[in-house]
Parts: sequence; C-alpha cells; structure tokens
Amino acid sequence: MEELLYGAAYYDEYMPYERLDKDISMMKKAGINVIRIAESTWSTEEPEEGVFDFSHVTKVLDACEREGLYVIVGTPTYAIPAWMAKAYPEVMVTDRSGRRPYGARQIMDITHPAYRFFAERIIRRLMEAVAGYRCVIGFQLDNETKHFGTSSENVQQMFVRHMRKKYEGDLDRFNHDFGLDYWSNRINSWEEFPSVAGTINGSLGCEFEKFQRQLVTDFLKRQAEIVGEYKRADQFITHNFDFAWKGYSYGVQPDVDHFKAAEAVTIAGCDIYHPSQDKLTGKEIAFGGDLTRSLKKNNYFLIETEAQGFPEWTPYEGQLRLQAFSHLASGADSVMYWHWHSIHNACETYWKGLLSHDFEENAVYREACRIGGQFRELSPSLLHLKKENKAAIMVSNEALTALKWFPFPGNGANRTDYNDVVRWIYDALYEMNIECDFVSTQEEELSRYDVLFVPALYSAQEDCLKRIRDFAEQGGCVIATFKTAFTDENVKVRTQVQPYLLRDCFGVKYHQFTAPSGVKLAGDSFALTEEERNAELFMELLETEDAQVVSGYDHYAWKKYAAVTRKDFGKGLGIYFGCMTSPAYLKALLASLWKEKGWWTWKQEIPSPLVIREGTNGKGKRITYYLNYSGEAKACACGGSGRELFSQKAVTEGEILTVAPWDLLIVEA
Amino acid sequence: MEELLYGAAYYDEYMPYERLDKDISMMKKAGINVIRIAESTWSTEEPEEGVFDFSHVTKVLDACEREGLYVIVGTPTYAIPAWMAKAYPEVMVTDRSGRRPYGARQIMDITHPAYRFFAERIIRRLMEAVAGYRCVIGFQLDNETKHFGTSSENVQQMFVRHMRKKYEGDLDRFNHDFGLDYWSNRINSWEEFPSVAGTINGSLGCEFEKFQRQLVTDFLKRQAEIVGEYKRADQFITHNFDFAWKGYSYGVQPDVDHFKAAEAVTIAGCDIYHPSQDKLTGKEIAFGGDLTRSLKKNNYFLIETEAQGFPEWTPYEGQLRLQAFSHLASGADSVMYWHWHSIHNACETYWKGLLSHDFEENAVYREACRIGGQFRELSPSLLHLKKENKAAIMVSNEALTALKWFPFPGNGANRTDYNDVVRWIYDALYEMNIECDFVSTQEEELSRYDVLFVPALYSAQEDCLKRIRDFAEQGGCVIATFKTAFTDENVKVRTQVQPYLLRDCFGVKYHQFTAPSGVKLAGDSFALTEEERNAELFMELLETEDAQVVSGYDHYAWKKYAAVTRKDFGKGLGIYFGCMTSPAYLKALLASLWKEKGWWTWKQEIPSPLVIREGTNGKGKRITYYLNYSGEAKACACGGSGRELFSQKAVTEGEILTVAPWDLLIVEA
Amino acid sequence: MEELLYGAAYYDEYMPYERLDKDISMMKKAGINVIRIAESTWSTEEPEEGVFDFSHVTKVLDACEREGLYVIVGTPTYAIPAWMAKAYPEVMVTDRSGRRPYGARQIMDITHPAYRFFAERIIRRLMEAVAGYRCVIGFQLDNETKHFGTSSENVQQMFVRHMRKKYEGDLDRFNHDFGLDYWSNRINSWEEFPSVAGTINGSLGCEFEKFQRQLVTDFLKRQAEIVGEYKRADQFITHNFDFAWKGYSYGVQPDVDHFKAAEAVTIAGCDIYHPSQDKLTGKEIAFGGDLTRSLKKNNYFLIETEAQGFPEWTPYEGQLRLQAFSHLASGADSVMYWHWHSIHNACETYWKGLLSHDFEENAVYREACRIGGQFRELSPSLLHLKKENKAAIMVSNEALTALKWFPFPGNGANRTDYNDVVRWIYDALYEMNIECDFVSTQEEELSRYDVLFVPALYSAQEDCLKRIRDFAEQGGCVIATFKTAFTDENVKVRTQVQPYLLRDCFGVKYHQFTAPSGVKLAGDSFALTEEERNAELFMELLETEDAQVVSGYDHYAWKKYAAVTRKDFGKGLGIYFGCMTSPAYLKALLASLWKEKGWWTWKQEIPSPLVIREGTNGKGKRITYYLNYSGEAKACACGGSGRELFSQKAVTEGEILTVAPWDLLIVEA
Repeated sequence: MEELLYGAAYYDEYMPYERLDKDISMMKKAGINVIRIAESTWSTEEPEEGVFDFSHVTKVLDACEREGLYVIVGTPTYAIPAWMAKAYPEVMVTDRSGRRPYGARQIMDITHPAYRFFAERIIRRLMEAVAGYRCVIGFQLDNETKHFGTSSENVQQMFVRHMRKKYEGDLDRFNHDFGLDYWSNRINSWEEFPSVAGTINGSLGCEFEKFQRQLVTDFLKRQAEIVGEYKRADQFITHNFDFAWKGYSYGVQPDVDHFKAAEAVTIAGCDIYHPSQDKLTGKEIAFGGDLTRSLKKNNYFLIETEAQGFPEWTPYEGQLRLQAFSHLASGADSVMYWHWHSIHNACETYWKGLLSHDFEENAVYREACRIGGQFRELSPSLLHLKKENKAAIMVSNEALTALKWFPFPGNGANRTDYNDVVRWIYDALYEMNIECDFVSTQEEELSRYDVLFVPALYSAQEDCLKRIRDFAEQGGCVIATFKTAFTDENVKVRTQVQPYLLRDCFGVKYHQFTAPSGVKLAGDSFALTEEERNAELFMELLETEDAQVVSGYDHYAWKKYAAVTRKDFGKGLGIYFGCMTSPAYLKALLASLWKEKGWWTWKQEIPSPLVIREGTNGKGKRITYYLNYSGEAKACACGGSGRELFSQKAVTEGEILTVAPWDLLIVEA
Repeated sequence: MEELLYGAAYYDEYMPYERLDKDISMMKKAGINVIRIAESTWSTEEPEEGVFDFSHVTKVLDACEREGLYVIVGTPTYAIPAWMAKAYPEVMVTDRSGRRPYGARQIMDITHPAYRFFAERIIRRLMEAVAGYRCVIGFQLDNETKHFGTSSENVQQMFVRHMRKKYEGDLDRFNHDFGLDYWSNRINSWEEFPSVAGTINGSLGCEFEKFQRQLVTDFLKRQAEIVGEYKRADQFITHNFDFAWKGYSYGVQPDVDHFKAAEAVTIAGCDIYHPSQDKLTGKEIAFGGDLTRSLKKNNYFLIETEAQGFPEWTPYEGQLRLQAFSHLASGADSVMYWHWHSIHNACETYWKGLLSHDFEENAVYREACRIGGQFRELSPSLLHLKKENKAAIMVSNEALTALKWFPFPGNGANRTDYNDVVRWIYDALYEMNIECDFVSTQEEELSRYDVLFVPALYSAQEDCLKRIRDFAEQGGCVIATFKTAFTDENVKVRTQVQPYLLRDCFGVKYHQFTAPSGVKLAGDSFALTEEERNAELFMELLETEDAQVVSGYDHYAWKKYAAVTRKDFGKGLGIYFGCMTSPAYLKALLASLWKEKGWWTWKQEIPSPLVIREGTNGKGKRITYYLNYSGEAKACACGGSGRELFSQKAVTEGEILTVAPWDLLIVEA
Repeated sequence: MEELLYGAAYYDEYMPYERLDKDISMMKKAGINVIRIAESTWSTEEPEEGVFDFSHVTKVLDACEREGLYVIVGTPTYAIPAWMAKAYPEVMVTDRSGRRPYGARQIMDITHPAYRFFAERIIRRLMEAVAGYRCVIGFQLDNETKHFGTSSENVQQMFVRHMRKKYEGDLDRFNHDFGLDYWSNRINSWEEFPSVAGTINGSLGCEFEKFQRQLVTDFLKRQAEIVGEYKRADQFITHNFDFAWKGYSYGVQPDVDHFKAAEAVTIAGCDIYHPSQDKLTGKEIAFGGDLTRSLKKNNYFLIETEAQGFPEWTPYEGQLRLQAFSHLASGADSVMYWHWHSIHNACETYWKGLLSHDFEENAVYREACRIGGQFRELSPSLLHLKKENKAAIMVSNEALTALKWFPFPGNGANRTDYNDVVRWIYDALYEMNIECDFVSTQEEELSRYDVLFVPALYSAQEDCLKRIRDFAEQGGCVIATFKTAFTDENVKVRTQVQPYLLRDCFGVKYHQFTAPSGVKLAGDSFALTEEERNAELFMELLETEDAQVVSGYDHYAWKKYAAVTRKDFGKGLGIYFGCMTSPAYLKALLASLWKEKGWWTWKQEIPSPLVIREGTNGKGKRITYYLNYSGEAKACACGGSGRELFSQKAVTEGEILTVAPWDLLIVEA
C-alpha cells in the first residue's frame, strides 16, 4: 500500500441491529480507511456442515467497494462452529489437562485431519466469495495461531515419527543425546516411546515444544498455500502474531517461532496491547514493533491494538494519538484497533473498542478522528519508515523454553524468566534512546551491527555460538549474560568448561554458580546507590582468564570471583554479565561503553520519558519523533534542523522544543 | 408457635454412648424447649435399600413427648447412604470437576430420578413414622439445599429443553439474544447445542446458573408437596437457607433464589455463622435476619447458629447472650444452635456445639442457661417482633451471577464482588442504626418505602427498571450505584446510552468508565480525610444532563466528569454513585440526606458499636434493643420511656443508659 | 565396617563419555572410599522385558575391586523402564489425581502384582550378577520408598479386607469406632464399603494412610527377604529413609513409619538436605541424625547429602567440611554425597554433585579432598560414636497424619503443622546444646530418660498414654503440649474430660480452647520481651486442679485460665503447655528446669551458633565436637581436657578455644 492504513476490526455478524451504513459513515469521519473482517465468524459463514453463507462478508465488501474503504479478509479458522465439535469431538484439542470442552476459540487440535479438512474447505469457499472485490487489499491467515498445547495420541505419534526420522532410527544416539538413561527413561524401541506428557526430561520436553512450534509454522504455511491459489498479485498475505502475555504484550512468544512462521506471509503483522494511563511508557509498542519489523527486515502491519481496552486502560486525553504515532515510529505501516465497537456479550465485553456499547461518539472516538486526519495528511512523510540500527538483540524460542523447564532460582508465578532478561536489556536501551533490531539464532548477517546483545542464550547450537564468536573477533561488541551457551540444542548441559566455546571470547570461565543473597557489585566506578549495586537473580562465580573485571562481588564468600567482565577479543570486544544487575547499573555500563566507542549522540542526552525514535522515509528524508510519555510538558534541544510536521514550522538544531503532555512532535530533516 | 423457641440440633445417632435422658435433663436446665432431628441421618434410617429403621427418631420423640420438648423433624435427604452411591453411582453429582466421589454430604445430583425416587420414599416413611407425635411442631425440608453445580449430560439436556421451550423453538431469536455469533458459538439446531460447561459466553453461563437455581426451587417445592400430604394443620414447613460464605455468612446466596424458593415453606428459616471475639459486630446477625424476614415479609426461624463454633470463634463471656437477643431483635422467633454436642469424628469435629466433646457443663453452656431462662420469661414481650422499615435494599441473584462472570477490575480470590457492594451499603446503614428490608427485583410494593437502595443491579429486566423509575417519580428516593441497568436479563449490554432507562431519573449519562488509580472525590463538603475521599473499585465517567454534582473526580484526566450526583425527579429524588466510595463518604452523604428529609432521629446520634434495633411486639408495644457490641461499657441517652425488661425498671426518655460490655438492654415502651 | 565411609552415588550409566578410570582416580585423591551404584538404572539393566545387561554394574565393580573402593549396591526398583509402563500401564500408580503418566520415578503402584513380579526378578538377577564381588559391602533396598498415594481399586479392596479382618467382620463396632453414622456414611455391608478417596471422615482417612504406610513396610521387608537369600554374612542391608520435606529435610516423614520400616534393615540409613550459606544452622543434620540413630538405637549411614546442591545452596568455604563432621557428631558412620558429578539432563540438572557438569576440580571438590584425608586419619577416634541422652522426644506418624486432617487454625500452605511443633521443641534443645533421642509411641524403655517431650500427641492408644503417665509417676519429667491425648487411635475425640488419662499427671483439665488473637502469656518470671510472650497457634483454656500455674493468659476474656502449668506427680513432674509459645519462652522455661534439676552444664552456657555435640567412641573415650555455625570466629571455654584432634594439641578444661568461621574443633578426652 502506498498510504498509511488506519483501521479497525469490524464484525457485521455481531451487530445487535443493522448499523453498516452508519458505521461506515462514522469511520470515514474518523479517517479510517481499512477494516479487517471475517476471521472468527465461521459459524455464520457455515451454519451447517457444508452449507455456506457469506452474505455478511459480501454485504460489507459491497459497502466498502462503494465507499472506498480497504478491507483485509481473515480466514475464520481459529474459532470452530458448535456443529463441528458436536459431530467430531476429536477435533477439540487434548492438552495436559485433557480434552478441552467446546466454548472458547483456539482450542481445536490444529493437526487433526477432520479440522484441517473443514478449515481448507471454508478458506477456499471464502476466497471464492471475495475474489472479485478490488477493495480487498490482502488476507490474514487465521489469528494469533498457536499449538494450544496439543499433545493427543496422534500428536505423540507424529512426534515419534519426527524423532525417528531425525535420528535415522539410531536409538543409541537418541538415548545419549537426550540423556534418557537417567531415572530409567531409556527407550529401547521406537514402539515403546511413551507419551511425553509426563516426562521429567527437560530435553525431551523442550524438543516436544519445538515440535509443537513447528506445527504452527506448518499450519500457517499450508494456509498460505491455499490462499495463494486465489490471491491477486497486488494482494498481501499477513498474520497477526502476538507476544508472550503478562497481562499485556510482554516478550518473545513461547509457542510460535516468529522468525520461521513469518516465512508464510508477505508482510509481517502483530497485535500489541499495553498498560495505559500512568503506566503508559511506549515500551511495548517499541518492543513489539522492533521485533515484528525484524521478522522480515521490513515494515509491518500493526493489526490490532487497544482503543479503550480494559476498564483500567481507558486512555487519558492524548494517549491514543501518542500511541498511534509511536507505532509508525517503529516502522508500522498501519494502525488498527481491536475493534470498532464494543461487544455486548461473552468474554470480551470489557475489552472495549473505539465505540462503546452505545455506538455514540465518545472521547476516544473524537481523538481517533484527529489521528485519522493527521495520518492522511502526513502519510507521504511517515509511510515506510526504514531503520539502520547498530545494535541488535538475539532472541531464541529454544532458550526461552529451556529456561521454563530449568528456571532461575525463586518461587511462584512471578518468578523471573527469559523474557524478563530480554526486557531488562531492551528497556535499558529504550530508556537510553538506543534503537535496536532483533535477530534470530539463525541470523547470518550479524556484521551489519556494532553491538550484539545475547541475553541468557541457554540452549544454542554450536554454529550459532561460532557466529557470535566470529562477530566479536571481527570487530563487533558482544554483550552476553549468565546462562549463555550452557546447554546444547538438546538442552543437555555442555560437558566442557563454561561458557562453552565463548570462554576465550570473554576471557572468563566458571565451575560454579549460586543465587545472590545480600550480594552487591563491587569495584565499579558508576556512582550508583547501594540498592542499584545489587547482584540479582543468578550469579556465576566467574574466574577471569584474561578478562578485565568491571565489577566483582561484594560478599565475603564470593569476593574472589568476577561479576561483570570485558575483554578485547580479536578486533572486537566481549562483555559478560555473570549476574543480573539493576537497570541503573546496566545503563551506566552502556553509557560508559557508548561514550568510549564514540556512539554517544544527542539522543542519549535526552532523559526518559522523552523518547526519540528515528528512521528514513520513502523520500529518503530523516524522520525524528519526539514522544512525550508523561503527563507533564517536556522540553529538549532539537536534534537536527528540519520541518516539524504537525505545525509545519521550521526547526533548527539546538532549538528548544517543548512537547505537551502525552503529545509528540515529528521533525522531517 | 406462641412462645420463643430456644434449641439445638440433636443427633442421637451420633452419640458415642447412651445419653438421651442426661441430655434432655441438661437441655431443660438450659431452658431449651426445641430440638431439630433426623436430617442427614439417612444411613441409619434406611441401612439397606428398602429396609427402614426409625428407632433413633422415635426414641427421641418418645422422650420429648414425655419431657415436653418440641421437635422439628428434618427430611434426611441431603446426605445419601453409601449403598446408594455403590449401587447407583450415577446419583453422584457431576460438576465442572467431573463426577464427585462418595463421602461428603450434598454431592448428589438433585435432579437424578434414582435419587429422587429414594428421597421421596424415605420422606414418606419418615413422615409416617412421626405422624402421631404432638411434640413435632414442624418440618424442615432437606438442609441448605443447593444445586451443587450439577451439570451432567441429563441436566444439559434439561437445559436445552428449557431454552427451546422458552424460545418456542426460535433459534434466530435465541442466537441474537445471547450473542452467539461471537467466536462462532452460533447454534443452528437444538440438537447440536453444546454442553455449557466450557462456554465463554457469560449470557449463556448466567442463564444456566439461573436454571440451576430453579432446580433448587423445584426440588424444595416437591419436598413440600410430599410433606404436605402428611402434616397437620398446626405444623409448619420451613427450610434452613444459608448465605454466601466468605468464611462466615456474608451475603446473598448465589446458588439459590431465596425469594422464589421461600414459596415452598410456611415460615422462612436460615442459619447464620459469624466472626466472634473481637470481630463480633452483629452485622451478619442483622443482615441475615433482615434478609430472611424479608423473604415472606414475616418473622422467621433462626435454625442454626454457632454455639462454640470454630476454635477462633469461642465466645467471650456475654457474647452468646448478646447474639441470641440480637437474633430476636431482627425478628427471629427462634434461636437454635448447631449443635447440642460436639461431634467426635469427621469434618465437623472442630465446629463445636454447646457442649464440648466431654459433654460436661462449660462456660458456654452456663451462659445458655441464662439465655434460656430469660427467653422463657420475656417471651410474651419479645415474640413476633414486627418492623416497618422505611428503607429497602434491592438484591438480585441475576446481578450477583452476572458480576461473577463479568467481575470488577482487580485480581485474585479476594476481589470485590456483588455482595461487597451490597454489604458496603448494608453495613453503613447498620452503623447508622438505620434498619432496612430487602426486596427482590420482582417486588411490586416499593411504595411502602421512603428510600430504595439499588446496588450494582447489573442485569435487570426492563419492568424492574421501570418500577424503580416509577418509585422515584412518585416520591421515593432511589440511591443506585455504578453498573446498575447495564445489561438486560440475558446479561447482554444494553445498546442505548447508560444508565439504561434511568438516565432521566438520575440526570446523568456515560459512554466510558475506568478503574480508579489515585483518584479522589472532589467537591464534596463532608469534611472527610484524604483517604476517605478515595474513589474505589470502578468509576463511570458521568456526564451530567440535569443532575447536580455531589462530587466530581479529583484527577487531572477525569476532572470534567461527575462521580456522585443527585437530581429531583418527579416527586422524588435520584442519587447515583458512579464509583464506590469509602464507608465514611457513604455515611456522610446519607447523614446529610437523612437530615434534609427529616428522617434523622436519636438513633442516628448513637455511635457504633452501640446498636439500636426496634420493632413492635405482639402486644402492639414498641420494643427497643440497646446492643453493646464492644468489650467496654457504653452509655447513651434513652430513646423513649418505658420499662427495661431484664431489670424490670422504668426508664425515661433522655435518661442515660449504661450497657455493660457485650451486653444489652431491652426497653418496652 | 571398621572405618568411616566417605563416598558418593555414582552412575556410570549417565556418563556423557567414558570416565570411569578418571573418576576413580579423582575419588581416591579426595579420600572417597565408597560409592553407591545401580539404584534407579533399571532400564539399562533390563533394556527389554526379560533381557538383562549388568555390564555397567560389573564394569564399575571390577574397577572398584581393583582399586580398593567399597560399593553399596542398590536395588533399581524405584524407577521403572518405559517398556513396563507401555505394556502394563496398570503398574502406574493411581492416586487422588488419577493414574499418573509415565515419566518420573516413584510413581508406580508398589502393591501391583505385575510390578512386584518384575521387581523381584530384577533384584534376583542383580544379586546374582554382583554375588562374587568382595568390594560389595552391603545393599540398599530401593530408595526413599513411599506409597506414592496409591489408592486404586485393588488397594481399596486390600484396605477393606484389612479392616474386615481387623474387626473380625463386626460392622457395628467398626461403624461406632469410626463414627460413620455422621452424614450418613454408615456402612452396612463390607461389599458396599466405598472408596475412601472422597471420604470426609478423618478417622477413616487416617486409618487408610496408616494402611498405606504399612504397604511401605511390607514392601521393604519383602525386598529384604529376597536380598537376604543372596547376601553374605558380612554384608549389610540398609535403606535410604528421607524426611518430611519443606524445601529441605524438615521433620517426621508422613508417608513411612520409620520405626517399623527400619525392622527390614540391618543398619538404618537416611538422606539429609538442608539450607546452606547464611541459612546453615546444622539443625537438620542433627535432627535427621538423631532420628535415624534412634530407629535402631545404633549408628547409621548418612547415605545422601548435598555437595553443591541447588544453586542457592552452593556452600561457602568451610561449610562442606563443617557439615561432614556434624553428621559424624550425630552418630553417622558414613557421609555420602548425592552425587559424584552433576547430571546433564532432566529434572535434577540443578541438584549438583561434587563435580560440576564440566568434571573439573572445583572449590567444593577441593574441600572434599581435605575432608576425605581427615576422615581417614581420624577414623579410629570418630567411628561408632555412642550417645546416652537423658532427653527424648516422642514422635508419631499417627499424630502427624491426624493433625493434617484436623489442622491447627490458620490458612494457607504455610500453616503450622505437627512437624512445626516437633521442631519448635527440637530446635530449642539444639540451641541449648541439649542432645536428645527420639522414641516411638511403642517405646517400652522410657525409664532410660530423665525428660520426655510429648509434642501434640493428638492421636494415641491408651497403653501409650499409660506409659507416659507411668514414666512421670516413677520419677520422669514429662513435658507435653496442647492437643496431646485428645483422640484415640481411631482419631475419634475422647469423650472424657481432657487431657485424657493424663489429667492427674498434669493436674489440669479443659473443656474449651480457642485460637490466640492478641493474647500474651502472663505471670512468668522469665524476663522476656513483649513479643516473646505471645501465645501462639492454639490455646487450651486450662483449669488447674492441683497444678501450679507457670503462666496464665494475659487477656481480659481468658485471664482465669492457665497457659503453662507444672505439677509434681508421683516421684516425677508433669509440665503442660496449653499453647505454643515463642522459642525464647520455651528455652527460658527449660533453662529454669534444667538448673532446678541440676542438669545444667557448661554446654548450656555456650551460646548458639556454637554447637556442642558429644558421645563416646569405640575406644570408650569422650568425643566433644565444637561446631561453629557462623561466618565469624567464636570463642568459648573448653568443656573438658583432652586432645584436639585436628591440631593434635592438648587442651585443658576452661581453656579458651577459638573456632574459626564455619569450622570446628574435636576434643578426645
């Protein structure tokens, strides 16, 4: 598309009374130019097995064709009709808790042939029904697809076939690689391979979850093939990826390998939900955006985000607009709300859309009107924002899952996990206005970056570790943390001295580790408070070989060990964190490094919560966003001369810019 | 009965050795004149299928007939014998967790034909066995009957038949009313109606729970029919209703519609258990009593309450007596303990009776002797206390259930629910010595009241809302809270501007709401502390149309919205709370209103924990209770001249009365 | 054995590569002279049903025979191979949650004939395979055997047969003893006896758990019979008993009757895991050691303890050595680690052995080398330490289980239980350097002791209570707590005045009890702080008959009742705690008593965390351990003259000894 998309999900099927014309009229007033339809409405599209009725879909398409709205059509496959569950109860997913009862969406077995048969048929019929419409600009495959924990007998058998093939039938190698002699778990014939539902072997458990993630990729690729048979060349295929959820979009998705699954689509898409009101920071918008942009190294669609959302998320004045432009600042080419109106029934009644249940204009709708107008006006400057970041964070589903099976010390539901380590790094960068990309463990082009962050890469293949080592040797700066390289791709602890293969890169080794209790970081010169010097979460007892100690442990029992180290390695640099630290410590270390390396710019001088995001637009001009994530006006020196886009006034470098509460400025150089 | 009943549950069946004569002798010494027997002892009454043995029952009846004790005979149907579960395992209830194993009471399927067959037979045999006894003054149907979550296949089918009949087979209307198109839940033939066990559609979930409550009503009515075939005209039928349990009797019972189920009995009964020692306030005694009295708008039986209760409830000296008279002050005609002696085995070993396990006289028994003597002496003055309250609180099972499916923001097991909103209001009135009735949403005679409180009436039929509106228009004062009128009887959000149908009554509307975070109430003149001005739980962003703002929101983002409003409407008044407030705020507002309206009396001048409860006795005389719910003596001015009943001394209006710790005075005017 | 054993569990089966020679070489360097092998490796020993391969076992035995290491061979029966679960799924245990899936160890039904058949066969084949080896010094039966909650239909039927036999078919007596009339639980034919899985009758529940414990004893005795057919006279049989687990070895094991099960072995063994670093106190080492030593009234084997353990247990320098000698100080004849190396896979990856995953020498291994050398050197002085303690604590599985069914007031997972009461007493003695034994409720030789502690003996047979009473009458001092004697052996509350049968021994009675809330202990002269005077957990309202009140309750409602009493009874003394108190109160009372009785010695003058443990060695000499459980050097006066064993220097009574941080001295008199 050559214009910014501004839109919402729309369900004519759910309307309590006929509203289509009125809704389209209100959308156009708000500058909305795209709606997303059809996903999740299978039971209206196929009310009986084999009986099809796309009248809701075509009615909306007719109106959009007439009124000039774009439409994204979603395949409806993530919510199955009651008739299917009644006639074929085996399509309901069986997870660790047993077979799930009918009711919710996303609880079918995505591998089951019966489900796959019906899914393919409804997709084909839908594609046929929408084929003639010019307003249809693209398709969304399913929605937030996952494996839903499927582990029924058929899936267990698929897994055994998968492992048998992977090991070419070699059981001895398999038993060895997965350490199955332990506790008599040895398998001596493929036929006696037990269900992994009860396994206490984390290697096997992680392998099964990797296999489950592959099921998602396969499912999406198959949907892409089907849709591909029908779509026009100008139509895109996308998917609505979502993130690990901690009450909001938080981190790397454990149940999908986004990098692999993104191969199924022509443009990546995602949904991002985040805290609001006083808790609005923009971090999730940036995190989810940077990650989704990294999937295909290109712009992406923001397919869903909150309008009013939960009651506690009702936005303050200005926040909806600040959020919308923040998405663009990450490289989104669209901002779409879930959803146009608020649902009157069922479990999402309090996940509110742009309109409340009364369909009246309200404060949020009025703010959307302002956003829509500015999107239309500024589209030529803001579309297709490109980034050339010098920092990247390597993320890994395998490490995430392995650290779920082998968690950090600590108890309870709120215990620190892999994503907390990732966010510890990401959030520090965000607060320092250092933009970054994400890379997968398969990434071959690390040399594009100056700095590579490697948080807790607990499980990794040897070639990935080699690429990290090479990156440093050839001039890059690697900043890795505790737990990195500890286990192989089968989550079996390496038998060599740790950190495996990176020992010379960082100039450290360790034989032991513990959990910090009353341990401070010593010997740093970062001028931190006592509390900011806490060693946190986990501590490796690092022995330096030829590294420089940045900080040791301030504790009588551990004072001979290093906590944070650095070493010049080849043409590059290796920095290693043996423990987690406070955000303040991490930021102080990065500031020191950035200054030393000459990477420190005016953006790092800007104090949070004023956020700077940059890129180059389609015209090759530099776009700089000044985003004020606070309820007070903030002033800062302008980073470069140009034109402020809302006011259309010229600004000069060094000029003091004032950004109103929950507001923003955009400067085009 | 024309005398106060004072009694206890008695189980000859459970006695470790023969004690009947000794027990009756001790009872008579304590002034106990009634015992409740037979419920829960099915396995002794019918040791084998079809073999009956009522010897325990008749032995006790013979003794009571001889010794002059009254007896209430309970049907034993709430605890089934082991033989039934063994031979007919299908009688065990299937709830969301599956079929329950045999062991506890109250875990059979009350709809199952096999259970119903055996229940009817044992009731008939029992009725025949006790038919000749004059000492039997009445019958209790079952005990604390509920539906026990029954949701087996047969109950699902009953529900489908029920809905099919209700909708006269019209599936389109049904799908529309329950919003089943959402997430493909649409049902296109009655045969494919899925079990609601997994539903995510709260409308359907609430309807099913309403249906389950109807099963309880039907069950009790059927028992009443059977008992009715045998009972004499002078014998009553009652039931032991219990309340929502939060570690004690707390609020409206979610699983029974008390108003409807009470139609099965000739006199309502209930049990009330409450915190003790320093946590004894009398609130639960008053709440449960006011609610039970309201069921049939008449006096009621207090059928069970704690004697010693749990270890942490062991009463301080004086508390047992204070409690006993407090029940009478609510309109109870009986006070009966659960139970006479403490059980030596099983799960209620630490729910202790009047006697401990050693059957000796103890401090609590000795206090009971004092109570029993005073009951007998004062019975003519205290029996049949009648009330004419000017305030009423409207309560609703439907609203309660709907707010369970659609809870207030917040997390965890202790999150605020419907009953907390009800108790927020009830407790404020109690602390102000304002007595009230409860009314159901079906109540047609609201005009008896000056004030009607409507807490969080989240789901309501249109005619109920109209009656509320009419009540205000014709001169009543309606005080309603947030969430009222939000959804229809199917728990589908109204599509009109809120508060639906009451918008002109209160002179407000709102399109949005949120959860308060650091929000205070502004603009009131109630002289409250900072903390007492907190907006709590939920806040609607009220826009006044022609209401007066009592308080706005003190927060920069919400300052243009109203929090609490009032409007003269017709001949009456509408007060609306857009948020929950501190008890102090609520009481301050009510005090202001009471003074304005001229309802303020000497009773409101009495500070808590001195509690005043009043009524008119059978002789037409005013009875005033002065209840001291504290460990310190309290003094107050006498509210009216008369005779203090314990001392038999005359008192005069304005005279200073001193009430000893955990003690009371009663003045008969 | 006539030398101290120092060793580790060793699994050639789990090695990622061939390491046997290297490992034995490292062991010998560390002074390790014994390894434990073969348990849990069934799947390598019998890879297919009926196909046996003991090559790993014999390979290790060959090397040990050659290199002079001792070996303990464990039967592998606690972890079943996958083929067994696949072919005979019925061997998996069915507990309250249903049938457990294959994966973990210790989840088979130990009563199932199929499992028993295979277990017997693998034991016999293993015994044959290891028969010729001189290095095999003994056998371990299974490991940490328990019943795993087995409650399948076959176990239910065994239980019914057991009860039927116990009651000689007398159902009336059975119903009476278990109070089954309550809630219609009466059983009128043995055939209709329901599964106890759902019972609410704690008497029945406790009886079933006692029956389950008997299954464990029977299982171990049967294994002992089989092993006994093969073993040489010089070979021992042991078992690895473990304790109630609260994140570490905490208290009396609920699922095994250690005293009865120990009859199956020739020498008792156990594992002890405990907090470390700043939380290391030595309490668990002493508690577990004293209890295991008491099982057979003899020395015992410490079969497993932590080397590095969990990350949070990584020992400070000196701690591993302090721990090792502390085990000897309790009477252990061995110290063995779980395990030699750290496992690279599965659920115990972070339960680390002496070696880390890299098999390198590390700080803990180097400390083990020091320990091993000193063990070898001091073995003649430290082996077979004997104790003659004057205090004993009576412990009871029956009381423990009964107090699980009838818990103390309070909520949540951390609520105080039986073991907390036991540890309240044990820990006070430990901190006072008063050593003690444990005795079972069957103990006939109480007269060996001066003092008998009876914590919360909630369920007890009459003859046990009589023995306690006799002990006091004949001159002993009984110190019993609340809840003692409350129920009979069927967990049915006694119908007599409490404390049953001990009323005259203590000179108190009570009819009521409550939970303390703001209650202090009054009237003591122990100079305690306000907080140390709290009444805790549970309080009986004691009425003294002829006892002396040590402390009353400081609360207006309970001030007439006693809290702690003492009475001279016969030639002895009865002290009764009606409530739990602070450790400070308990220790103050004991100090007072010890001084009064003349039991107070120099050891009680030594302040915690300096711990004194004593005994007599094989040469008849007194051995005194001075253990410093702190990170600071501690000084104290030497308790008796002799030779300090590490320094081989003479010490004299009264001389000031200084013990380094986490270090110890040993004096041989």
